[in-house]
Amino acid sequence: MDDAKKLALVVSEGTFDKAMMSMMMANTAASMGMEVHVFYTFFGLGLLKKGANPKLAGMYRLFTGVFRKRMAKVGIDDFGSQLRLAKELGVNMYACATTMGLMGIKKDDMVEGIKVLGAAGFLDIAADSKVQLFIG
Amino acid sequence: MDDAKKLALVVSEGTFDKAMMSMMMANTAASMGMEVHVFYTFFGLGLLKKGANPKLAGMYRLFTGVFRKRMAKVGIDDFGSQLRLAKELGVNMYACATTMGLMGIKKDDMVEGIKVLGAAGFLDIAADSKVQLFIG
Amino acid sequence: MDDAKKLALVVSEGTFDKAMMSMMMANTAASMGMEVHVFYTFFGLGLLKKGANPKLAGMYRLFTGVFRKRMAKVGIDDFGSQLRLAKELGVNMYACATTMGLMGIKKDDMVEGIKVLGAAGFLDIAADSKVQLFIG
Repeated sequence: MDDAKKLALVVSEGTFDKAMMSMMMANTAASMGMEVHVFYTFFGLGLLKKGANPKLAGMYRLFTGVFRKRMAKVGIDDFGSQLRLAKELGVNMYACATTMGLMGIKKDDMVEGIKVLGAAGFLDIAADSKVQLFIG
Repeated sequence: MDDAKKLALVVSEGTFDKAMMSMMMANTAASMGMEVHVFYTFFGLGLLKKGANPKLAGMYRLFTGVFRKRMAKVGIDDFGSQLRLAKELGVNMYACATTMGLMGIKKDDMVEGIKVLGAAGFLDIAADSKVQLFIG
Repeated sequence: MDDAKKLALVVSEGTFDKAMMSMMMANTAASMGMEVHVFYTFFGLGLLKKGANPKLAGMYRLFTGVFRKRMAKVGIDDFGSQLRLAKELGVNMYACATTMGLMGIKKDDMVEGIKVLGAAGFLDIAADSKVQLFIG
């Protein structure tokens, strides 16, 4: 298998910036013809909940709206739209089986099309990918 | 050398979630037969201190106990136990030589079996590994 | 092209520790003869501003001065000096085109020698690199 064409991302934070980066990287890569796999774990799992609306962390939290407006201005879709686009582009998205219980998130709480995968399954995919990035 | 079998992790934060992820990934990979190398630097170095008891960051700090109990319920060992398991599984763990002085941590402060390594040494290992992840 | 010789870093946080790690890794790798590419995005972009003076995050913010003094003691240059060294060593540094507008940073605000690059351009470089690390 040509691993140069595969991208594996881990997302363990649920903040606005990490959420947007995971989608911008995933969707850009998918548009370039890469096979993309995104593994959500710990606080990142919250992003997969129906209607998720991520905020910036800490003291930046109140500025999330400003960021969202600036993004709209330069033509960057909000997180929900990017997640839908990711599914259309065939991006593979996974919820970490081990931390789902820990975070109190069930399969029914999540948007459709998310697979549940363990750490071993993800490591198998990562070992077969050319680019691997752990986005916080 | 077959780099498909090597995993290199960097851990620069000392929070509960990053601590657990580094161990869960390392021990899963080692159980799968991979050769695993974990490089602790900056705030991650605190995790190598004897009796380290990591907490969640910021406003989540007070919820660390809840997380720990939920983990025990789904059969995930606490950080100390996972660290001991990592050593048994042959996971290679390193303290960053450059930032040890910066963080005020000496070799004697740390649990046994930790090697001291510089950034160049780690980059050599990473360049020879199939999967590299920087866990915060 | 020999991808074993290429290192690709992403920096999305502007804190003191992430700033220092990006430079210490980049400059160590460049000194080892590796070809190095560092992509600054989101809050990481602030590090490229003229006179940037990064601080530790949250409750550690006030301790930045202590860290800086300890670094000087063990012979680690401050961020500005390391950035200049990186340029001398031929480290390639990029500002993320997409998030520059979002963060309100213009090319003129940044130190000299920074290229502007999109996510697709960075992914191309990363796919051709042996080591890729997302430093927060």
